[in-house]
Amino acid sequence: MAVNRSELRWNGWGRVRESVALSEPQQLAVVQSLARQLGVPQSTRRVPVAIAEAELPPSRLDRGILLELGEAIGHDQVRTSVIERAQHAAGRSLPDLLRLRSGKLGRAPDAVLYPENAQHVAAVMGLAREHALSIVPFGGGSSVVGGVDPVCPQGKRAVLSLDTTRLHRLLALDGESLTATFEAGIDGPSLEAELNARGYTLGHFPQSFEHSTLGGWIAARSSGQQSDGYGGIDALLVSAKLVTPRGELSTLGVPRTATGPDLKELVLGSEGTLGVIVEATVRIRKRPAIHDVRGMLFRDFASGIKAIRALQVSGLPMSMMRLSDARETELSMLLRQDPTRSFDFTARFMQGVRGLGYRDERCALLFGIEGDEPMRVEAEMLRAQAIGVRHGGLPLGKAPGESWKRDRFRAPYLRDFLLDHGFAIDTMETAFSWSKLELGHVRVVQAMAEAARVHAGAGFAMGHISHSYADGACVYFLVLYPLAPSDTLGQWHAIKRATTDAIVQSGGTLSHHHGVGLDHAPWMAQEKGPLGLAAIRALRQAFDPEGMMNPGKLA
Amino acid sequence: MAVNRSELRWNGWGRVRESVALSEPQQLAVVQSLARQLGVPQSTRRVPVAIAEAELPPSRLDRGILLELGEAIGHDQVRTSVIERAQHAAGRSLPDLLRLRSGKLGRAPDAVLYPENAQHVAAVMGLAREHALSIVPFGGGSSVVGGVDPVCPQGKRAVLSLDTTRLHRLLALDGESLTATFEAGIDGPSLEAELNARGYTLGHFPQSFEHSTLGGWIAARSSGQQSDGYGGIDALLVSAKLVTPRGELSTLGVPRTATGPDLKELVLGSEGTLGVIVEATVRIRKRPAIHDVRGMLFRDFASGIKAIRALQVSGLPMSMMRLSDARETELSMLLRQDPTRSFDFTARFMQGVRGLGYRDERCALLFGIEGDEPMRVEAEMLRAQAIGVRHGGLPLGKAPGESWKRDRFRAPYLRDFLLDHGFAIDTMETAFSWSKLELGHVRVVQAMAEAARVHAGAGFAMGHISHSYADGACVYFLVLYPLAPSDTLGQWHAIKRATTDAIVQSGGTLSHHHGVGLDHAPWMAQEKGPLGLAAIRALRQAFDPEGMMNPGKLA
Repeated sequence: MAVNRSELRWNGWGRVRESVALSEPQQLAVVQSLARQLGVPQSTRRVPVAIAEAELPPSRLDRGILLELGEAIGHDQVRTSVIERAQHAAGRSLPDLLRLRSGKLGRAPDAVLYPENAQHVAAVMGLAREHALSIVPFGGGSSVVGGVDPVCPQGKRAVLSLDTTRLHRLLALDGESLTATFEAGIDGPSLEAELNARGYTLGHFPQSFEHSTLGGWIAARSSGQQSDGYGGIDALLVSAKLVTPRGELSTLGVPRTATGPDLKELVLGSEGTLGVIVEATVRIRKRPAIHDVRGMLFRDFASGIKAIRALQVSGLPMSMMRLSDARETELSMLLRQDPTRSFDFTARFMQGVRGLGYRDERCALLFGIEGDEPMRVEAEMLRAQAIGVRHGGLPLGKAPGESWKRDRFRAPYLRDFLLDHGFAIDTMETAFSWSKLELGHVRVVQAMAEAARVHAGAGFAMGHISHSYADGACVYFLVLYPLAPSDTLGQWHAIKRATTDAIVQSGGTLSHHHGVGLDHAPWMAQEKGPLGLAAIRALRQAFDPEGMMNPGKLA
Repeated sequence: MAVNRSELRWNGWGRVRESVALSEPQQLAVVQSLARQLGVPQSTRRVPVAIAEAELPPSRLDRGILLELGEAIGHDQVRTSVIERAQHAAGRSLPDLLRLRSGKLGRAPDAVLYPENAQHVAAVMGLAREHALSIVPFGGGSSVVGGVDPVCPQGKRAVLSLDTTRLHRLLALDGESLTATFEAGIDGPSLEAELNARGYTLGHFPQSFEHSTLGGWIAARSSGQQSDGYGGIDALLVSAKLVTPRGELSTLGVPRTATGPDLKELVLGSEGTLGVIVEATVRIRKRPAIHDVRGMLFRDFASGIKAIRALQVSGLPMSMMRLSDARETELSMLLRQDPTRSFDFTARFMQGVRGLGYRDERCALLFGIEGDEPMRVEAEMLRAQAIGVRHGGLPLGKAPGESWKRDRFRAPYLRDFLLDHGFAIDTMETAFSWSKLELGHVRVVQAMAEAARVHAGAGFAMGHISHSYADGACVYFLVLYPLAPSDTLGQWHAIKRATTDAIVQSGGTLSHHHGVGLDHAPWMAQEKGPLGLAAIRALRQAFDPEGMMNPGKLA
């Protein structure tokens, strides 16, 4: 099943029929509580502009070119309708949503193309070269760094959004080598459905899972919620096929190679700048019967971190570990409160544990282990729990895990709900080595909060450890602030800049798993050094001498 | 402690005082047995030419340039003596040894330089550019693919061999992040000594461990004997610093990054073509107290493979798995025989197990698990053993493991010993996905044996699985044949060509861990495709526009 965009919001997250997992009374309580804590009046609802009122620039493509494109890939697969162009006008970053919701789209692709195979993609590239068009590959469109923004640089006539979602078939499954080959436009649920039906899983579950594609994961060097166990997309990728302006590149499908730089590593993180990923072979595993996820409370972030580090070197097969800082732990309590319930167990419990020393600095850890044998999973879980307890952890049992599993892909809906009520949430993430992490966390959170105070009058900043390694971890930051009455994009940009500067100054990377896109490109010279940047540009030049592929992104 | 080359053979493997781990009677028995099996007369000893008789081309460098180099890095660190040039005239491949032993070196570096730091390296590059010299980075000099061959291309006046072994210090150890930063010219034993003294290990033990360097491991994308457990050098590398003709490149030291292509992946496998690796930060671990290695016998290669695949997905923390095919199992029995012992336990044992169905096709597996807690290691070992038994394995206990541990770095001495007696051994290796492995193994062994028959009149070919992954494994091939009376290099080349063609045709890579160098370069267009090759060349061009770095290698 290919993606059906008519079921999806054109200006918000996910399915039209789905929204934040909060009842009406809960929503009201959350909004009231946030307004009170931020010291702002509870603002009126901000209704996004409807598609009928949206303002798009007219398509710059003439009928002749559209006909040629149509002849190459099918006339019904070359689309210039307002809704198609709006659906492909942005990714799903906060500034994307601000732009879409304002109805003033500013930019949109001049046409949206739906190729069905690698030959179609190559044909589109040939025509794009001939007519000086640029191409933006578009999978699920869930980039949060401006990765699918339809930028039309000087010297190009127009932008084609190349939607890969018709490339959605399972091509081969090798049960002996435990690999599967897919067309790269397949979305997360379809990919897992194909594998699950045969008893396998890829185990790659980014937050965007329901609305992102295999090709997008590879292009952005994605990580998933269980990448502690399965490894990021870089660890899962065996080989890829790329259609580039200079022809096809197929990397060799072997478990490891030492023949110079690994070409597959050039495809990972290429963000559509080298070509379009049309096929990929990935490592799969037998789908485990059990995913046991439990919660634990720590007295502070530092002791939670010590527990994670101890679990990292324990040899236990952790599938996930997510440690919220104190502020995020508090916010998640707020989101779990239900004012219609007379007895609030969570609130009572949290009250009770204060006496045990789990006070304002307390931090919640979620941790999981997968397996097939209940006894073994239970034994491993008990060992993991014992390590946590040794660092002052208070076991919270399976309930937090069950609720995480239920709502694991729902978080992005929260952003739309808050935007409706005048609050912005932005997320940024980085990786630090352990010795830089605690200070880095503090500095970045402070920079975010300070920027929110300056540019929004108030704000919360918080974070969690989302992925961990023997040598460090990914810290995922959230900032929540009241939207300015006007120039919300300028407001976002100022906060983004301050946060990114703090990340870079603290020794973190611009991104652990979101990518570079447009938003992080200004910092790339700092991260990669002038020579590193020159190397990336030399690669782009080698694959795309005309500079037609995803211009303005990456470097 | 830096490497002391005066203790090392200039024309053979390792230390002058060390040699093959066989007693005189054992040596005689081996040579007699091989001659009998190959159906050739027991040849007379072939004594390699002594250094005093070796013929080297004269150095092309004039005194002026040598003085400038000496001013840059110290006059005593610019060397043009016959022994220094001979020591840096080749790596340690079979053709290298044939060339060195013949005394007709054909090529040698025009000078050998010993820089002490990154500034020295940069200064040498500046002078090399000015005087149109080429530079061959040289670590341990153990390349088996011609990676350190002093090739002087058209347009260059001379070749400098840049010996990195004075860059040998531990610069930092971060016990919290479990990383260590070394100068890249440090050799294996010195690196482990620094770490072991502090309770850590890198866990990287390639066959060349005693005579190779950290920088060389990175440049060649090395794997070690325990990389099943620790991962290859790619998994161990956090960041690297490279001095290139266009300046320094320092990659960011974070556990993971999604900011476009990972620059560290360009350094891995760069084989000295982009610059000189001067520093590297690597992941370290607490050194485990126990390394339990045991043997197991399988009825045939296929059942051994099934056991390895089952162990791969078992979740057991295997530190190593090495499965010899029937021919190699037989050869290792031969090497273990001792004609001076009246009762040969091994021979008796092998005789005995024939009755249990372990006959001519029997294959030996070595498998290991590391840990600190004896009870846990024992329990895991029993689980591993049970999996093996389920696939028809016969446990052989710890003796084979102890003997492997004792002699694990001695195997290369065997080659010199056999060359002394007129027999050549060459090794080649590849990685296959599991579904291609069994057929690939058969085809490559057949191609090797056939090539040996055609070009040497007779020969054995065999192989073992040296590294395994969920999706496939490295197969390491050996061919043993009688040396031709003349043109031994032509004989080698014909056999190498046939073997490599068979590897490529069977879906394997040109190398799983040896690299490309000169020897595999002719096949690189086939492996990487024209576009992949163009990308690698564009990278070289970006770092080294004058083409001075390790010319002729890689692509």
